[in-house]
Amino acid sequence: MLSKNQIKLITRLKQKKYRLQYSFFVVEGIKTIQELLQSKLTLHALYTIEALNIDAKDEILISDAELKRISFLTTPNKALAVFKIPAPKPVNTSGLIVALDAIRDPGNLGTIIRLCDWFGVTDLVCSKETVDCFNPKVVQATMGSITRVNINYVDLVDFLNETSLPVFGAFMEGENVYNKQLPKAGVLVMGNEANGISKEVEAIINEKISIPRFGDLQAAESLNVATATAILLSEFRR
Amino acid sequence: MLSKNQIKLITRLKQKKYRLQYSFFVVEGIKTIQELLQSKLTLHALYTIEALNIDAKDEILISDAELKRISFLTTPNKALAVFKIPAPKPVNTSGLIVALDAIRDPGNLGTIIRLCDWFGVTDLVCSKETVDCFNPKVVQATMGSITRVNINYVDLVDFLNETSLPVFGAFMEGENVYNKQLPKAGVLVMGNEANGISKEVEAIINEKISIPRFGDLQAAESLNVATATAILLSEFRR
Repeated sequence: MLSKNQIKLITRLKQKKYRLQYSFFVVEGIKTIQELLQSKLTLHALYTIEALNIDAKDEILISDAELKRISFLTTPNKALAVFKIPAPKPVNTSGLIVALDAIRDPGNLGTIIRLCDWFGVTDLVCSKETVDCFNPKVVQATMGSITRVNINYVDLVDFLNETSLPVFGAFMEGENVYNKQLPKAGVLVMGNEANGISKEVEAIINEKISIPRFGDLQAAESLNVATATAILLSEFRR
Repeated sequence: MLSKNQIKLITRLKQKKYRLQYSFFVVEGIKTIQELLQSKLTLHALYTIEALNIDAKDEILISDAELKRISFLTTPNKALAVFKIPAPKPVNTSGLIVALDAIRDPGNLGTIIRLCDWFGVTDLVCSKETVDCFNPKVVQATMGSITRVNINYVDLVDFLNETSLPVFGAFMEGENVYNKQLPKAGVLVMGNEANGISKEVEAIINEKISIPRFGDLQAAESLNVATATAILLSEFRR
């Protein structure tokens, strides 16, 4: 059985202000919940419609109707968990860092976190305007990678002004990335879906890089920011 | 004003069987409609809530409420258009071809079509199990690229058996793609989101390739198929 207070808490966690206030976030789906249980994250509560073979002391059995009531999904999965939001560690500036300038789409942020995990990028730095990484759609899209990437929300202009690392930025009219010598340590800045990198951030960038277009037509207007990040991280690591 | 028949037609076009029956598909949003109008596609009807400066003879003014009724989106844009589905051209086997083995997610297919357009891949070949490219969510995600990529739905096993091009496939345990000499002409096969490339298709693949994982943890389970396609097309073209 779900109490009124439990329902109220979970429903509120859809909103960023309540996630900040309570320091909790919601995860749905057995597979992702299991991945998060294996991480250093602290479980607050686990609601499930059938007893799971999960090592969780706080497992609460609920009905299908109850799950439907608390789920953020149109088609709820079998379980929903509430985890404590971990305190971010200070940014590790010894390697490659991805910095996001106002990424708004939760799917894009989730995909970029998954890419950081794949390419061994331990630190992701986000401008304050970037969508919250504990937004349920972001968490879902990371496929568990959210537990392995250290994410800090910062004043991006201050952060870039203070770093001694070379700062690369993805632009439509930058240097062909295939012709560049890329370092092991540096910051790669990716810009907003509609407007790209802001003027203030652009002013601090040392190297503008581009992914060239191919073919006879060359009519494609742009690449999605997550696929562009995939290609650029691959270039830094190959 | 919208007639009952117009509403019925548009609503039906949400379903693949009716798109095949009528040979029409729906596009929403002024920007994408404009891109499609500039292509070789034939407009059937254009419904809009305000007179657009669009070169379209069949512009029909409708109310907000009417647009809401026919739109497939939660938040309808200002215009909805019905276009004729073009007949696909025969596959051009002189260059790089992307082949999809049962891609199910419309967003992934849309992103892959956009990537083909960016990287000058003129031909995309899809197995019959792949989501329909005229699904409204696919069209939306292509950002206009659907008009510039020739897409054929085929029996993928037959197609690969008959081609004289080298066939590459993306696998978790293939050869490191960064160490491969990749040809200008060939087929790159990408597999289903959950199951990868099917056994039948795997049997016909000449070269299995992989994107290596980096970092100390190496815990990331996989890359999303659209981001993997982005990285592999970049490797073929760089």
